[in-house]
Formats: sequence, C-alpha cells, structure tokens
Amino acid sequence: MKNTVLISRIKRQKFHKDTFDNISEERKKRILDVSIKEFAEKGYNAANINAIAQKAEISIGSLYSYFASKEDLFLTIVDVGFQLIEEVLNNINIIDEDMFSKLEKLFRTTREYAIKYPEMNQIYLDLTTQGLSTLANRLSTKLESITVEFYNNIINEAKIKGIIRTDINKELTSFLIDNMLTMYQFSFSSDYYRDRMKIFLGSKYDIEDDALLNEIIMFIKRALN
Amino acid sequence: MKNTVLISRIKRQKFHKDTFDNISEERKKRILDVSIKEFAEKGYNAANINAIAQKAEISIGSLYSYFASKEDLFLTIVDVGFQLIEEVLNNINIIDEDMFSKLEKLFRTTREYAIKYPEMNQIYLDLTTQGLSTLANRLSTKLESITVEFYNNIINEAKIKGIIRTDINKELTSFLIDNMLTMYQFSFSSDYYRDRMKIFLGSKYDIEDDALLNEIIMFIKRALN
Repeated sequence: MKNTVLISRIKRQKFHKDTFDNISEERKKRILDVSIKEFAEKGYNAANINAIAQKAEISIGSLYSYFASKEDLFLTIVDVGFQLIEEVLNNINIIDEDMFSKLEKLFRTTREYAIKYPEMNQIYLDLTTQGLSTLANRLSTKLESITVEFYNNIINEAKIKGIIRTDINKELTSFLIDNMLTMYQFSFSSDYYRDRMKIFLGSKYDIEDDALLNEIIMFIKRALN
Repeated sequence: MKNTVLISRIKRQKFHKDTFDNISEERKKRILDVSIKEFAEKGYNAANINAIAQKAEISIGSLYSYFASKEDLFLTIVDVGFQLIEEVLNNINIIDEDMFSKLEKLFRTTREYAIKYPEMNQIYLDLTTQGLSTLANRLSTKLESITVEFYNNIINEAKIKGIIRTDINKELTSFLIDNMLTMYQFSFSSDYYRDRMKIFLGSKYDIEDDALLNEIIMFIKRALN
C-alpha cells in the first residue's frame, strides 16, 4: 500500500459551499476552531450555530453563506479530522520497521494527538452515537476503510517476514487491535473514559507514560506469536 | 468475591421522586420503556420530555411529579442499566468454571443483551460523550467499579490455578479485555459501530455467530499464556 493508493481511494465529498474556499486562511481557521470547540464541548445537538458565529466574530448570515446547515459545518469538521488520521497512518506506514514498531508508533501518535486535540476525538465519539446515525451516514469516507487497509498491510507484511504466526486471522486481529486503540484514544479525550481508565489502572501507571503503551504492544505481540 | 460483597458496595442514589415508587408496575414500566426508546434513538439532548409523556399516555405534570427533570429521568434509566449489568456479572462470577469459560460467557451474554436491548447500550454510549460529562458525574455508581472487581477476581483465581502466567498485569489486562468487550458490545447496538464491525470483518463471519466470539477468547488466551 503506497500513499498514493490510499489517497486516491478517498473520494472526498465537500460539505462546505464554494464561498468558504475563497475566504482568508485566518478566517477559515477561526471559524473551524470555534466550531470544533463548540461541537466538542456540547455535542452536536446542543451546539448552537449562533454562538459559533458570535464567537468567530462573523454574522450568522456569513456563516450560512459558507455552510448550508449546522449539519454541513459538523461534517466539514469530521472530514478535517479524518484527513488528519489518514496523514498519520500514511506517515507510519512508510517507515521501514516491523509490525510492532509500527503499532507502537500508531498508539503513541494517537495518544499524543488525543492529548493535544481532545476535541476531535470528542466529536468522533459523539458521531458514533445512535442519535447521530443519520448524520454519520452522510459521510462519504468511512474512517474504517482507511484504517482497515493500514492494518491489513502491516499484518500481511508481518506474516511474510515471519514475525507473527501465519494462521493469524487478519480481519479479526485488525478489529481487536483497533478496538483497543479506539478505547485508548477515548481514554485521553473524554472525561468519562479518562475516569474509566483511572478506575481500571489505579495509581500503578502514569497513564501518559510509555510503560503503559509498551505493555499494550506486548499484550498484542503475545497474542499473535 | 461473593454476590453479597458486590451488591453491598453499591450505594445506589435515587434519581426519581417517592411518588414514582407508589404507582403501578405497569405504569412504571410504560414510562421507562418509552423513555429508554426516546433517549436511545435521539440522544439525551435531542430527546423530548413532552414526547415521552405523550407516548407514555400520561400528562407532563404527572411525569414531573415522578422525576424533577429530564436529567433525573435519564439517570434513573442509566441506573436500571447498571443494575442489569451487575446481575449479569454476579451470575457469571458464581459459576464454577475457569477464567476463559467465564470470559466466553461474559462476551456471549453481552452480545445477547446488546442484540435484545440495543437501547441500553445506545444510552450508555451517549452518556460517555464529552457533552454529557456533567450528567455522568452525577452518577454515584461507576459502572467500572463493578466491572473492575469482576475482572480482578477472575484474574487472581486464574493465577492461583496456574491457568495464566503469574506475571500478568491484572490492571492492564482488565482494561484491555474490557476495551474489547465495550467495542464488541457497541458493535451490536449502534448503527455506526455495526457498520464499522462489518468493514473490519467483511463477509468472513456471521457476526452473531459463536465463531467470532471463540476467536476473540482465543486471542485473549494466547496473550495471557
């Protein structure tokens, strides 16, 4: 899987109007930053589009000239987040190291991003709830179609190199690793999951320390050897 | 860990008013069923308390005489869900089988409940979002304080019986198993996670079949041996 293959597969759908492309980068960033904060903190349904316009210091009329609806603004942000993840996966994929080094980098980068940009994960978590299922269905790119390819690739490579057992089930292994990654990521971004992680791990770990991360990778390694 | 120990630790807080205790079981059930459906489908923020009263065929005045707020009604339902999980864990805990048989029962029962009562999982997922963190903080019982004890117990027992390596880290293992269980459970209840699971597993599995479940348990078993 080369970068180009991944990227060419992504048929991005545009959720903003053309007018949004034509404003300054500074204004774009300001609108997106304020929106991300509002959606992350309150959740999609409680987020207020008037409050977003006000905090971004633009008129509500301007905001609607860039995005047809609150839904479109939300989907634009989700799309930005997916692009970020795609880039991260591409960067990890091209490094010349074995499966477990790549997984370690994946977990580490995910943790760093979750701590640095908790809002994007909070928005993703909100998107996965049943109440927003209609909204999630409008996304043309599924995050999972990007991640599945990443896992398939590193597992195939590891089998060829003899790093993991050859009878390892690729699909299930990808699913289980990503389940652990998703919950690990939520644990650094939502208050609920942060508390949950502390209840599970107690005071034994500094949860932002590498010891925890290394033990997770060891758990996976043993399961595949 | 005996049942009594678990149960005695739960200091339940009551989120409903005394008046709710005094109405017929049929009326109670009707109100809770309608509320569960509304909260699960729409999410807490979009759920409408007037719609709940109407669908339950009671006046909004009556509903407020039972619950001080939408928040209290929501927390009452969450509490019912946690009680259900507690019972399930207690029933699995007392069976006389080894760690992996207990885990297999845990995953199987979780799947069965998620398929039978997807609404309770949809509500739990909603509760874990950042937008509802203030609400989640009002819960006196953390679901995790119930589940952690369950895992600790079966891991300790397995170490004594020599079923798993003695250097296994109890806290991290509990966390990782529960992460896989939580995502497995979401995969049967929210449309988003159901689609995600299908993207990961493709057509290889009947996802409601035991083959998938058995392979998950095998993955955990290998990681701990």
